[in-house]
Amino acid sequence: MPNRELNVAMVGYGFMGAAHSQGWRTAPRFFELPITPRMKTIVGRDAAKVEAARQQFGWEESETDWTKLIERDDIHLIDVCTPGDTHADIAIAALQAGKHVICEKPLANTVEEAERMATAAEEAARNGVYAMVGFSYRRVPALIFARQLVREGRIGDLRQVRAAYLQDWLSDAEGPMTWRLDKSKAGSGSLGDIGAHAVDAVQFITGQTVESVSGVLETLVKQRPLLGEQVGLGGTASDERGEVTVDDVALFLGRLSGGALGTFEATRYALGRKNALRLEFNGSKGSIAFDLERMNELEFYDGTDAAGEQGFRRILVTEPEHPFVAKWWPTGHGLGWEHSFTHQVVDFMNGVDSGTQPEPSFAEGAQVQRVLGAVERSSESGSTWVSTK
Amino acid sequence: MPNRELNVAMVGYGFMGAAHSQGWRTAPRFFELPITPRMKTIVGRDAAKVEAARQQFGWEESETDWTKLIERDDIHLIDVCTPGDTHADIAIAALQAGKHVICEKPLANTVEEAERMATAAEEAARNGVYAMVGFSYRRVPALIFARQLVREGRIGDLRQVRAAYLQDWLSDAEGPMTWRLDKSKAGSGSLGDIGAHAVDAVQFITGQTVESVSGVLETLVKQRPLLGEQVGLGGTASDERGEVTVDDVALFLGRLSGGALGTFEATRYALGRKNALRLEFNGSKGSIAFDLERMNELEFYDGTDAAGEQGFRRILVTEPEHPFVAKWWPTGHGLGWEHSFTHQVVDFMNGVDSGTQPEPSFAEGAQVQRVLGAVERSSESGSTWVSTK
Amino acid sequence: MPNRELNVAMVGYGFMGAAHSQGWRTAPRFFELPITPRMKTIVGRDAAKVEAARQQFGWEESETDWTKLIERDDIHLIDVCTPGDTHADIAIAALQAGKHVICEKPLANTVEEAERMATAAEEAARNGVYAMVGFSYRRVPALIFARQLVREGRIGDLRQVRAAYLQDWLSDAEGPMTWRLDKSKAGSGSLGDIGAHAVDAVQFITGQTVESVSGVLETLVKQRPLLGEQVGLGGTASDERGEVTVDDVALFLGRLSGGALGTFEATRYALGRKNALRLEFNGSKGSIAFDLERMNELEFYDGTDAAGEQGFRRILVTEPEHPFVAKWWPTGHGLGWEHSFTHQVVDFMNGVDSGTQPEPSFAEGAQVQRVLGAVERSSESGSTWVSTK
Amino acid sequence: MPNRELNVAMVGYGFMGAAHSQGWRTAPRFFELPITPRMKTIVGRDAAKVEAARQQFGWEESETDWTKLIERDDIHLIDVCTPGDTHADIAIAALQAGKHVICEKPLANTVEEAERMATAAEEAARNGVYAMVGFSYRRVPALIFARQLVREGRIGDLRQVRAAYLQDWLSDAEGPMTWRLDKSKAGSGSLGDIGAHAVDAVQFITGQTVESVSGVLETLVKQRPLLGEQVGLGGTASDERGEVTVDDVALFLGRLSGGALGTFEATRYALGRKNALRLEFNGSKGSIAFDLERMNELEFYDGTDAAGEQGFRRILVTEPEHPFVAKWWPTGHGLGWEHSFTHQVVDFMNGVDSGTQPEPSFAEGAQVQRVLGAVERSSESGSTWVSTK
Repeated sequence: MPNRELNVAMVGYGFMGAAHSQGWRTAPRFFELPITPRMKTIVGRDAAKVEAARQQFGWEESETDWTKLIERDDIHLIDVCTPGDTHADIAIAALQAGKHVICEKPLANTVEEAERMATAAEEAARNGVYAMVGFSYRRVPALIFARQLVREGRIGDLRQVRAAYLQDWLSDAEGPMTWRLDKSKAGSGSLGDIGAHAVDAVQFITGQTVESVSGVLETLVKQRPLLGEQVGLGGTASDERGEVTVDDVALFLGRLSGGALGTFEATRYALGRKNALRLEFNGSKGSIAFDLERMNELEFYDGTDAAGEQGFRRILVTEPEHPFVAKWWPTGHGLGWEHSFTHQVVDFMNGVDSGTQPEPSFAEGAQVQRVLGAVERSSESGSTWVSTK
Repeated sequence: MPNRELNVAMVGYGFMGAAHSQGWRTAPRFFELPITPRMKTIVGRDAAKVEAARQQFGWEESETDWTKLIERDDIHLIDVCTPGDTHADIAIAALQAGKHVICEKPLANTVEEAERMATAAEEAARNGVYAMVGFSYRRVPALIFARQLVREGRIGDLRQVRAAYLQDWLSDAEGPMTWRLDKSKAGSGSLGDIGAHAVDAVQFITGQTVESVSGVLETLVKQRPLLGEQVGLGGTASDERGEVTVDDVALFLGRLSGGALGTFEATRYALGRKNALRLEFNGSKGSIAFDLERMNELEFYDGTDAAGEQGFRRILVTEPEHPFVAKWWPTGHGLGWEHSFTHQVVDFMNGVDSGTQPEPSFAEGAQVQRVLGAVERSSESGSTWVSTK
Repeated sequence: MPNRELNVAMVGYGFMGAAHSQGWRTAPRFFELPITPRMKTIVGRDAAKVEAARQQFGWEESETDWTKLIERDDIHLIDVCTPGDTHADIAIAALQAGKHVICEKPLANTVEEAERMATAAEEAARNGVYAMVGFSYRRVPALIFARQLVREGRIGDLRQVRAAYLQDWLSDAEGPMTWRLDKSKAGSGSLGDIGAHAVDAVQFITGQTVESVSGVLETLVKQRPLLGEQVGLGGTASDERGEVTVDDVALFLGRLSGGALGTFEATRYALGRKNALRLEFNGSKGSIAFDLERMNELEFYDGTDAAGEQGFRRILVTEPEHPFVAKWWPTGHGLGWEHSFTHQVVDFMNGVDSGTQPEPSFAEGAQVQRVLGAVERSSESGSTWVSTK
Repeated sequence: MPNRELNVAMVGYGFMGAAHSQGWRTAPRFFELPITPRMKTIVGRDAAKVEAARQQFGWEESETDWTKLIERDDIHLIDVCTPGDTHADIAIAALQAGKHVICEKPLANTVEEAERMATAAEEAARNGVYAMVGFSYRRVPALIFARQLVREGRIGDLRQVRAAYLQDWLSDAEGPMTWRLDKSKAGSGSLGDIGAHAVDAVQFITGQTVESVSGVLETLVKQRPLLGEQVGLGGTASDERGEVTVDDVALFLGRLSGGALGTFEATRYALGRKNALRLEFNGSKGSIAFDLERMNELEFYDGTDAAGEQGFRRILVTEPEHPFVAKWWPTGHGLGWEHSFTHQVVDFMNGVDSGTQPEPSFAEGAQVQRVLGAVERSSESGSTWVSTK
């Protein structure tokens, strides 16, 4: 008996569109899915560009108006890969029309939007229609394995957390102004773009939530050159400068629900750090450390090893015992950054099939949004502690 | 104008079949190919298994007899992913029938076969029909980048080479007998399986060939349990043991054409080393180091940096300046082991389109085979030096 | 002409006494000192123990009353290695009696004491009598080299700092109560013990001061077993518990005088981190990273290297070009933790001889103390920002 | 009761003289020695230089004629730190005169000399007079700890060894000719200088001996500039060149007494490797790895850890459980290269006191010399296997 098919439409075709397409395309080739996703429609505002993307990524149709998808009965899942200011409209409409939704992170640009989305998702779930937010690092095998170790009590009681997401692509102060630096489109800067990943990863691995925060946001380079096209000059350079209205750096302390304190950092100015999501967890019995620049490795310190023989183990998370790995390649053949998007498809398909809410839910996404919002409020109020409730 | 299409048939559907399928499927999605490969036919002896593989990997047809492909005009390229003892028959027949060929490494089980294949390839190339051997690590960005540095003189005159391919999946002496441990099927053990990669990588990066060798092959575990099915008992265990007729460990010294000496090692008993192809090159002006377990990194020591400021640079080979990288993801988003198979397709398609021999040619594959053969002869003659000519 | 000799008296004979003795003993053996220190008198309250220490460490005399030293004309330098609550009394008396002083860090237990000490030092310096505080990591070659790189503009404008001093020796919640956990003796916990080192190292390397802070102090384990001797039972265990009155963890953000933000952490609960003073500096042109667990290495990222060739260089700071190194061993022969104490003696002797204030002065020590005090006040006031002035 | 004193005379005052002096000076300050060594006499041919060294290193007397020491009753131990061509004469005379001897490695320049020395040592030992060869890395805590792990069966049956000692101080082909490159003085090049350390370390850790070898020696730079003083021109440069008569690179395979094969390398041309004695041991149950550039760390892979949780542990060998460490500093405070010389003194004093032969004996030194000699013979005979017996 052939699998049930599920028609997917994806809105957006940039960096995330390419990554999600790779996930949709690849998942059925390595995993036994109970439902086969079909790459039906790709959507974007520019007809020529979206058609080129369709051919490039391998979708069946292209479309310029996402609202058309909502009306169609033959679209079963909408995958939202647009900038954050459009997430709420698309996702809520889709859910209300009975379509499953995967939505890129951060869930929305404001807490208010995120909460409306979570409410819509909760209602839809009662009818077996599911929504998931795309915190893709939840599907990195090393981090799932870290979560397992924590859950099994291997590090004991959590005492401290260190989480930093370090990139450097804004280091050049003469780099151009982009939509990601415009608060009206991006919602926030490093905080929402990469800080959100750090918060979600910490919460995922520890099984705890960040309850309150004290922090500061800062814009290091306050004006950047506008590209010619931004001031109506076509592709040529421009003397004009645009205001950077988002944070370049986000630094905060957070209190977790279990009581432990954590330090959090997000920056795109850490010259030389290309994609360093660094996580470190210290417990009463062990510690865990991770760096996304070496994503196939997890460091685990087992404080119950004999004295003198203790040391951080560099575990290559490339073995059949590790999450998702056995379906790929033999021992020792590392995965890349994109594989988490394939794993995300696998988990979502299984969730839909079994009628189980796939994680992270929109409610979880909204909770992360509240943490980000609390950081903003703390920063505005002299770094006093702010509750994330 | 749509691209010219080229119909591909792949023989074999094991580990390498999965990897090659992923390459064929993915290449057109990230790279602009002048010719679009079409995943036409997958071939294997067991009709049920090959049909299952067809569905799994996404080929259009399955077939049990590879000789049928030779007769078909609508098959333009044959991708040989079978054990080494069948390479020569398939590849030569395909080339003589005017079909392009990609053949997994090592090229053959014997030097004689390899040389016949090289001759067939040379003849075919005169008619624009190309053959390439699948030393996939030639398409790891870090290693291509290493080759560029060497070619640009950044390490000066080559003085020493260290090459070791360390795995550990045979460490358990009670692990079962498999075809890979049977010389009649596999041709050789660690030497051909992974030592071949080490030799090819050294030659690729240095632009030199190994001219003579002195070495030793050794079988550490001489008998292993036969699985029940191997002795007609079905899947149950068996008390019988089979003879391991290949090497477990290959150790040799090699003299390169430019005069430098290198040490080479291949083993599947280095407990804890999962897939460590380690390469190190020392020159008069700089050094390079690489470990496949951290395949997105290259270490480069520039001896012309100011005294006191010299140090091995850990270069993340994930930047747009690096080979193949710009077509994938933004800065810092690492690739995995499988991506080299996609790159291989890209290079082969470009070679076919432009009428340029894609590297490594069968002649290069045969030369590696001669190095392996020379190691075997040296081992048999008390580790005396043996020419690879 | 033989060197001028300078008679040294050291107060204290614990861990720091051993380290300082090694410095006094070793400095003249590897460095050409303009003044030869003579290990004259060691001082401690317990006559038997101090006499044993005298023999162990190789001092000429032992003494139980430090005030006697003040009266003696033949004592020229007093080296204060006692707990922080006695620093001010000893150091001020010594300076007023015209004796040079080296005082362990942190300078004092309170800002008020530290400032009185700085005033006394300033007065003494007018007469060529010098005082230095023992932030020994200022004499680790890698950190001096880091400072040179920053001063030479190699990282450009400083943008961000990460400083964490991670240890784990309090991880066992059933470990005993000690004087270091008693605020009346130790002044503070992780903040003063190791956080002080982190602050000083950042200020030393950047040439900037921490101007304001926002942070939190926390005691993770609030009661610990009293050893029997602490409750009058001799060496046997006790059921009683003592209150831990110092911080176990100190976390704070700091604004540097040049404008950059830094994160600071001090903890003795980071299981598996034995002595990890980790420092990271990101600038507009480069970055620097260091970990005391690998103290012979400095990582330097030169953002002016060609694109694609940039990477953190692992510089082995064991070369003749590096500070202090040439006087020790040939290239590549690493130093240990204790060597900074020898270097401290060298610099102090040179300062005394040349009439130049050796760094760090008591004024610098008092400034660090003000930073620590500001962290305490911020912690008490909900992590609001507090000036360190 | 004061300790028995033992008067030491040291012959030589170069690099090794400095290192040994530091050992003699420091050992009594950190360890409880049953016998106190007294730094009595330092010996060298140049009266002015040896007197300067006496003052620098802190010996009581200087002397220009080592034979005088032999005659003196008040010299109890002779520490031989001269080039290899004088070892045999001095050591044998000393032993025959009833004086203990510590002799730098390699034991001698020829096997014949080494064996005569071993015979003399064996005779002396019958009278409680001991000789030890200075393979100082036997006193690096990480390597002693490695030996313990191997002895306790933690890596199971030894299967493979990798040993490489990589330095780079000859990389500059225009660096000057020195006595170390003159076979008549140095005996051999990289083989004896650093290859000897690699051989000894492997034998020490495994408890096995190298029984046969197949290898090659090579001189990469065959002529080097003579300094002016070498051709009678004083300190100025010279156009003349001297012949390098020793090996620059030594590469060999070795069969250990337990059956395992090992690869060995010694080079002073590995640009960027400053002092990298790298050792790796693979067994049936675990593996061990070490790099002298990170001498406070040992990597241990325990193959009996649960599947999926296995990984090389980075053990900081700085804990009280580790050999020698508890007498130095608290947890995490790393030692440097020189500390092994202090440990050597401790072990020798304990051996003398207890009447136990300190290791490595001259017999062990002679055995290493036979391995080196066998490598030379194998190299001369086309890399055929040569027994070390």
